[in-house]
Amino acid sequence: MAALNVTQKLINEHLIEGELIPGKEIGLKIDQALLQDATGTLVQLELEAMGLDKAKTEVAVQYVDHNLLQTDFKNADDHLFLKTAAQRFGLWYSRPGNGVSHPVHMERFGKPGKTLVGSDSHSCAAGSLGMLAIGTGGLDVASAIAGQPYYVKMPKVMGVKLTGKLPDWVSAKDIILEMLRRHDVKGGVGKIIEYYGDGLKHLSAMDRHVIANMGAELGATTTVFPSDEETKRFLKSQTREEDWREMIADEGCEYDLHDEIILDDLVPLIALPTSPGNVVPVSEVAGKKISQCVIGSSANPGLRDFWIAGAILKGQAVHPEVSLDINPTSRQIIQNMIENKTFANLITAGARFHQSGCMGCIGMGQAPASGTISLRTMPRNFPDRSGTKDDQVHLCSPETAAASAITGEITDPRDLEKKMNMKYPKYKSPEMHIIKTDMLLAPPEDGTKVELKKGPNIKSLPHIEELKDTAEVPVLLKMGDNISTDEILKAGAEVLPFRSNLPEISKYAFTVIDETFYDRAMESKQQYGGHIVVAADNYAQGSSREHAAIAPKYLGQIAVLAKSYARIAWQNLVNFGILPLEFENNEDYEKIDQADMVKFKNLREDVKQRNPITVIFKKKNGEEVAIKTKHSMSDRQIRVLLKGGIINDFKEKLTD
Amino acid sequence: MAALNVTQKLINEHLIEGELIPGKEIGLKIDQALLQDATGTLVQLELEAMGLDKAKTEVAVQYVDHNLLQTDFKNADDHLFLKTAAQRFGLWYSRPGNGVSHPVHMERFGKPGKTLVGSDSHSCAAGSLGMLAIGTGGLDVASAIAGQPYYVKMPKVMGVKLTGKLPDWVSAKDIILEMLRRHDVKGGVGKIIEYYGDGLKHLSAMDRHVIANMGAELGATTTVFPSDEETKRFLKSQTREEDWREMIADEGCEYDLHDEIILDDLVPLIALPTSPGNVVPVSEVAGKKISQCVIGSSANPGLRDFWIAGAILKGQAVHPEVSLDINPTSRQIIQNMIENKTFANLITAGARFHQSGCMGCIGMGQAPASGTISLRTMPRNFPDRSGTKDDQVHLCSPETAAASAITGEITDPRDLEKKMNMKYPKYKSPEMHIIKTDMLLAPPEDGTKVELKKGPNIKSLPHIEELKDTAEVPVLLKMGDNISTDEILKAGAEVLPFRSNLPEISKYAFTVIDETFYDRAMESKQQYGGHIVVAADNYAQGSSREHAAIAPKYLGQIAVLAKSYARIAWQNLVNFGILPLEFENNEDYEKIDQADMVKFKNLREDVKQRNPITVIFKKKNGEEVAIKTKHSMSDRQIRVLLKGGIINDFKEKLTD
Repeated sequence: MAALNVTQKLINEHLIEGELIPGKEIGLKIDQALLQDATGTLVQLELEAMGLDKAKTEVAVQYVDHNLLQTDFKNADDHLFLKTAAQRFGLWYSRPGNGVSHPVHMERFGKPGKTLVGSDSHSCAAGSLGMLAIGTGGLDVASAIAGQPYYVKMPKVMGVKLTGKLPDWVSAKDIILEMLRRHDVKGGVGKIIEYYGDGLKHLSAMDRHVIANMGAELGATTTVFPSDEETKRFLKSQTREEDWREMIADEGCEYDLHDEIILDDLVPLIALPTSPGNVVPVSEVAGKKISQCVIGSSANPGLRDFWIAGAILKGQAVHPEVSLDINPTSRQIIQNMIENKTFANLITAGARFHQSGCMGCIGMGQAPASGTISLRTMPRNFPDRSGTKDDQVHLCSPETAAASAITGEITDPRDLEKKMNMKYPKYKSPEMHIIKTDMLLAPPEDGTKVELKKGPNIKSLPHIEELKDTAEVPVLLKMGDNISTDEILKAGAEVLPFRSNLPEISKYAFTVIDETFYDRAMESKQQYGGHIVVAADNYAQGSSREHAAIAPKYLGQIAVLAKSYARIAWQNLVNFGILPLEFENNEDYEKIDQADMVKFKNLREDVKQRNPITVIFKKKNGEEVAIKTKHSMSDRQIRVLLKGGIINDFKEKLTD
Repeated sequence: MAALNVTQKLINEHLIEGELIPGKEIGLKIDQALLQDATGTLVQLELEAMGLDKAKTEVAVQYVDHNLLQTDFKNADDHLFLKTAAQRFGLWYSRPGNGVSHPVHMERFGKPGKTLVGSDSHSCAAGSLGMLAIGTGGLDVASAIAGQPYYVKMPKVMGVKLTGKLPDWVSAKDIILEMLRRHDVKGGVGKIIEYYGDGLKHLSAMDRHVIANMGAELGATTTVFPSDEETKRFLKSQTREEDWREMIADEGCEYDLHDEIILDDLVPLIALPTSPGNVVPVSEVAGKKISQCVIGSSANPGLRDFWIAGAILKGQAVHPEVSLDINPTSRQIIQNMIENKTFANLITAGARFHQSGCMGCIGMGQAPASGTISLRTMPRNFPDRSGTKDDQVHLCSPETAAASAITGEITDPRDLEKKMNMKYPKYKSPEMHIIKTDMLLAPPEDGTKVELKKGPNIKSLPHIEELKDTAEVPVLLKMGDNISTDEILKAGAEVLPFRSNLPEISKYAFTVIDETFYDRAMESKQQYGGHIVVAADNYAQGSSREHAAIAPKYLGQIAVLAKSYARIAWQNLVNFGILPLEFENNEDYEKIDQADMVKFKNLREDVKQRNPITVIFKKKNGEEVAIKTKHSMSDRQIRVLLKGGIINDFKEKLTD
């Protein structure tokens, strides 16, 4: 047998359908499932619609981390619903306050050699432990929990060799920012990124989590790290040594693509607004005044990440113009932060501590003031995501954030040594973490008697229409490159509470781009029976939220025509019955105007037979332009799409 | 000279106008002023309108504690505005995260023998230190900062003698709940409550704060404690021994009214929804399932209050059906909680920790789930205040909350001893608190060059109309007893952010009572030039928010006709030019129907001359009812009212 890399080993062990040929759909057995609250209410409603008896995965966990502000009944009602649903369907329930899903999952449930799907785009973070962990839409997670294989196009595997050792004041965040500097937000599309090399031995499991987590920002299918002695040490420190197994690449294995990072050469990096791919050295923008620093989130969740901030801020005071907000990862991390004095160091310096959860990363609180710079160790800085319109969110390491919190301006942390004579604090990981698990509720043996508690804001899904055969509908929106799901359906305190109320949340579809969209879509739905939208490259990048597909579907969206798609969003479109068309010739994008009328004929048969689909665009002046389009769905996806998506497909199976 | 009580001494030392005759207006010199953010933005806009150069009080402090969620730009913009305004006008600025105004003020600025006004109804809490501290509308605070006397009707002084010693498991909160059980939410109206007696020697300064703070719930003008050896010990523990002076009642002094509490006889008490006056023994409602406990707020802010919860929960786990939310008072308290292990005890038990501030007390987060019981150590449980419609908020001591968090049901904390054999933990106050003050920014010597930063949600006040002479307008709302300012203009996450945007916040006026109010008021304003509302006893109790007057004024409210008024609200009405009429005969209340048309003639002259004001109510059937009304404004207030309120009065002074 040929020498295999870690990715190939993971896939081989879980392959149910297909072959390891890049671009071809494969079906994988899924061992673990991860849900968070913002996407989870919908997944639980889907499990209910599917009539699931009990989760078929080895482990499935419902986390509650995204929406903890509880500004009215809706939020707390969602928590009650999720708890009863988790117990009904055989999932673990991580109570509000227990922490952010990705690091908690890694600490308590992650196992080298296993597969995971999660209804959160950062679920790839579990790749840090030698898992194949993929963020995906909620319906795919629901299917996996119900025992179905997970389908994905076999990605290419990019081997990234890490050599050497990070300099002082440079940390794991700077490695992933370097990857984003090189490859930008779509450089990872269709790829699994596998890290290897000697440089790994200086990166802790949590450092690897930082890198794996933000693999999502590269657009990668997932990130894979080997499971080695460091992985063993980590699991041991979490009292789970028995869950360790070695997963390392065979000598002489091959990768489809190659890259290499010499760690010694890295400098502190920062992503400028409004994309994680806008990366420059911190020194290039040093000196700009800031109003806020936020430390924490799934992109810097480890005890070290807080410790280093505490060590830098020890005996210092937060600059009077700056709010330093600490976003702790989990109750467990707080306990450990108390133990190692980090908590006291930060509070004493003037930090504001918040409950464990996703907080401002998803726009749930701590929005910055208008026209001011916020430095965050979070993974994303898409426009408006912080909750402040035209925000100026920069992404950086805890070192850079802590240094800047002291000075009140963007600061290269190496300057603390040069100008303030501060030595780089050296972290020593504790042999054992303080561990307490009683905020994790195990599922009961038999949950069939558990009643689902649905507050007044939790609405069943309406019937979803199947794909039309003939239509004449307008191009309601023409968009550019890299449109994020935050722009398609924003998160934040105003919108998140409606994640289990489709008619209500649909009112926010595309409002970031065009505030008239909802009204125009409802009009088009009535007048023409629907609409399409047009986009350029990497459509719907970012978060995995399937609301960015189900809400447009609810508003009558028949198809999207784009140059290319982000992976999760492309799957979500199919799963909810929206046709994801691609240009045969990308230059044709220029020929389309917003408000063109589009004619589809014989669409169902053309999709089914994989015929070329020529779409007629009728201009305002009466002129007609024919544009050749295609799709790249698998046979399974075609079947699903024609039925109007996976829910209808499941319903049919149930009544069979 | 006659023997004086503490209240009389404080008033004598500050009397500028009037005599100590209950019911007559007196003018007092004000030494200190307290602002919080929710009312403070308006106060700062008023200081700006008044053209103030520099605060004339000895100490004025702008706190930021009410709205810290920052769900969008508005909140953070308010903080920036408040900071620049504080520096411009010579106020201290307590940064977000530094803590809740009342306890922080007590720890850092409160001085026995001084007077204070605060734009927060719980400002009376400073009475715990032997101060005369009065919560009032923002305009009165602005006037005091500008060096004007504070005018109030001389209240009666009620002496409450405390004897004996509290039993185990019973604490200061149960004393004020006992007062509320006896006197209800209007029992303190027109009164200052002065505590004295041997029982005081077992009550710490922070225990007294608990009692003084919730004096607001009795409707009292304020609460006064003596400044004694315990006060000295407290100030010493805060490194401020030099600020102490003795303020004790003379032997043989007299009180207008009397009450006595034998502390030994008290039991754990609880206020049922939806009034702080619905007090019963905890044992009467024990056993009801709960979903939430919240510990903290200005009504239980002391280190002891958290320590006792931590001591009870040490080694225990929060019940799986309960969310235990800790609402720490201040950064300083958190530092001390870390030091004495309280923080670790609570986090380990499963508590969710939040940033220091008012949080759920003012509906800013942690709203309970629909139809579930929340136990809170907070001061108020008015309907909808938590953010959840038809909420079931109960008010109790930290002992009761902590015991119930363990069991998952309302629990008399004495049962912990009876059933779980837990000894009542005995608190020992630290000799010195850990103190760090760098989140308090001192005002600059000269602030005249500081530029006010006004975000897009901060709007200047529109012109306020003077009192009409003739009008024919509808009774837009007829209300019952004890209408709170939470019902007139609710707080909470949806509304608070508009506190500096009058046109926007006015849309929420009276919506808790009648969702059509805003539309009907705007209609009436256009069609008739305004409206009046009618209420029964104790109109506009609760918070000091002057938005409950300025928003109705903006919507065209000419007068309120009520059986009686809460003190602060009555002043606010006058300050913003709304005529506060009272019934000559309270039975006439029954003769009025909502939608009656009201005729006023010669109103200005009648008010000015103190003529009896007969109001004609015209029924739908054409019948007319004449109702005799009166007002109890001072000459100064009449002058202010006729001009349309204090702002117009000031503007006139400026142009004189």
